[in-house]
Amino acid sequence: MSEFDLINQFFKNTKVKRDDVLLGIGDDCAMLSPPSGKILAVSTDTLISGVHFPETTSPEDIAYKSLAVNLSDLAAMGAEPAWVSLAISLPDSNVEWLAAFMRGFNELAERFNVALIGGDTTQGALSITLNVTGFVDAKLALKRSSAKVGDSIFVTGNIGDASIGLDIILNNVKPPDLFMDDYKSYCIDRLNRPYPQVIAGQLLTAFSAAAIDISDGLNADLNHMCKASKVGAIINIENLPASEALLVFYNHKPDWQNILTAGDDYELCFTCAKDKVTEMQSLMGTHNIKTTCIGEIVSGAGVKCMFDNEVLNFQQTGYNHF
Amino acid sequence: MSEFDLINQFFKNTKVKRDDVLLGIGDDCAMLSPPSGKILAVSTDTLISGVHFPETTSPEDIAYKSLAVNLSDLAAMGAEPAWVSLAISLPDSNVEWLAAFMRGFNELAERFNVALIGGDTTQGALSITLNVTGFVDAKLALKRSSAKVGDSIFVTGNIGDASIGLDIILNNVKPPDLFMDDYKSYCIDRLNRPYPQVIAGQLLTAFSAAAIDISDGLNADLNHMCKASKVGAIINIENLPASEALLVFYNHKPDWQNILTAGDDYELCFTCAKDKVTEMQSLMGTHNIKTTCIGEIVSGAGVKCMFDNEVLNFQQTGYNHF
Repeated sequence: MSEFDLINQFFKNTKVKRDDVLLGIGDDCAMLSPPSGKILAVSTDTLISGVHFPETTSPEDIAYKSLAVNLSDLAAMGAEPAWVSLAISLPDSNVEWLAAFMRGFNELAERFNVALIGGDTTQGALSITLNVTGFVDAKLALKRSSAKVGDSIFVTGNIGDASIGLDIILNNVKPPDLFMDDYKSYCIDRLNRPYPQVIAGQLLTAFSAAAIDISDGLNADLNHMCKASKVGAIINIENLPASEALLVFYNHKPDWQNILTAGDDYELCFTCAKDKVTEMQSLMGTHNIKTTCIGEIVSGAGVKCMFDNEVLNFQQTGYNHF
Repeated sequence: MSEFDLINQFFKNTKVKRDDVLLGIGDDCAMLSPPSGKILAVSTDTLISGVHFPETTSPEDIAYKSLAVNLSDLAAMGAEPAWVSLAISLPDSNVEWLAAFMRGFNELAERFNVALIGGDTTQGALSITLNVTGFVDAKLALKRSSAKVGDSIFVTGNIGDASIGLDIILNNVKPPDLFMDDYKSYCIDRLNRPYPQVIAGQLLTAFSAAAIDISDGLNADLNHMCKASKVGAIINIENLPASEALLVFYNHKPDWQNILTAGDDYELCFTCAKDKVTEMQSLMGTHNIKTTCIGEIVSGAGVKCMFDNEVLNFQQTGYNHF
C-alpha cells in the first residue's frame, strides 16, 4: 500500500470536522483559521516504542496514549484543544495495525473535538510525533511561572498508578496476593490510556493558577514550576492522593520515593490562592474532578517533601530522557 | 547531559526573535499570537536517517535539509514562514553533534526568520520531525486544485541534480571523466541543502497559481496536482530545465525517466494563466528566480510526457514511502 493509499484510507475523512480547518489533509499544507482574540498554545511530543511505551502495547493504546500525552500539555496551559498533526514512522505498511491505531486515536480525538489536520508517514522504527494546537486567552493561560508564595499546591486525580502498571507489564514485580485483577487492569489502563485533564485545565484559567503536567514525576515537575516561579514548595507526603489499587499494591506502605519520581501520571499539578480554594474545589467537584491539596508554595527554592514532620531526601529527581 | 540541559544549551535563545511568540521553549506549550486577517499554513515532515538522507550526512546538512524540506511545503502554499517545532530522536546525547545540527538549523531559520517555538528530544534511532507554520491570505493561497485548462506549467530552478548527488554519495555510478569536482559538490549540495522556494511561492500568490513542491519527483507531484484540479497535463521533455552539471553527467543525453521520477528536488511546479506569464516571469526575474515553462494544463487526466513529438511511457511514478 502506498503512502497515498494509507493517507486516503486512514487519515482523511476522520469524524471530527471543524469550521476552522479550511483545508485538511491532502495539499502541501493544511490551512487553518485561528479564532480572533485568542492565542495558540502549541506542543510537540514524541513517543518511541520501547522507550515511552512497552513494545507489547496495542496499536489502539499507543495511539490513545500519544494523543493523551500531547493533550495533557494543552491541559497544563488551560487551552482548548483544536488541531493535531500526526507524524508516524512504521517498520512496514501494516493495514490492520494502522486501522487499530486510528481507532484509538479517533476515540480520544472525537472526545475532545481535535481535528487531524496533517502529518507524515515514513518507514522506520516505530515512533509517533504529534503536534497539537489549542486556543486560550493570552491573559488566562496557566504558566509555570505564576506560582506565588502562600498558594496551596494541588494535584488532580491520583498519582503512581501508571508506574505500577508498567512494573506489572514488564514483570518487574510480583504484586501481593490481595492485588486483584481489577487493580491490575486499572493500573495498566492508567499507563496506556491516561486521561488528559483538559477540562480541569480550562476551569483553572479562572483562578490565575500556575500549572504543569506531571509527566516526568511530581517531584521533578513541581521543581520545574518552582524554578520558573522563583519560589520553593513543601509537599506533605501523607496528603498525596493514592488509589485503592496503589495502597493494596504497596501493602498500605507506598514507596513514595518511587511514586514521586516515576513519570507517566499526566495529572495536573497546580497552585491556587488560599482564598480561592473553596470556590475552585467546588467548581471542580461539579465536573467530578478530584483535586487534592498536597502542600504549599514557600519562599526559597526547590521542593521539600515532608513525612511525619521530617524532611525526606530523594536522590532521583525524575525521568531523564537520556 | 539531561534533556533540560540540552534544551537550555541548544534550543533556547536561538537568534530569531518574533513578537508573535509570546512564550517560547520552556513551558508545557508555546504561546503564539497569530496575525489577524491571515490564515495559518501548517505542514509536518519526518526525515529518517538512511531513508531520507544517507547515514553519512553531516549533522549541519541533516538539520538544514530537514528545515528546507518543511519550508518547501510552506513555499508551495505561498505562505510566509513563521514558527517551527523540532522533534528530534537521537541514539545518544552527543553534544558536538547537536551543536553542529543547530548550526545548520539556525542558518536556514535565520534566513527566513523562522522562530523555534518548541520541540521534544528523545532517545531512539536518528529521526527528525518538524512542524512548520506560515501565514498566508486565505484567498491567495496556492492550492493544488487551482490548475485550469490552458494554463502554462512552470518549474523553478533545475531538476534532477539532487538524484545525481545521491548517486555519487552512495557510489551507485561512476560519473564521466568530464564531470568535474565542482559539479560533484554542486549536486551533493543540491541534495543536502535544497533551497526552499519560499520567495517564489509568496510572489506567486499574485497570480492565482496552483503549486506543489516536487519532493517526490516532477511526474508524481504534477500528477497529484492534476488529480486535485481534475485536469491533465502535457509536459515537453525538451523544455525541462537542466543544470550544466546534469548535462555533463548524462553526456548531454539525460535519463529523463530517472530524473522525472527521482525525488528530492524541492523546486516548485506551478501553473500560470497564459496572459499573466510575461508579468510573472518578469517579477520572478527581478528576484533572480529561474522559471521555465515545461508544458500546459489540458482537459482529461494524468501527465503525458512528450519527447520529439512522441509520448513517453514511464513505469515508475515517483518516490513511494513504503
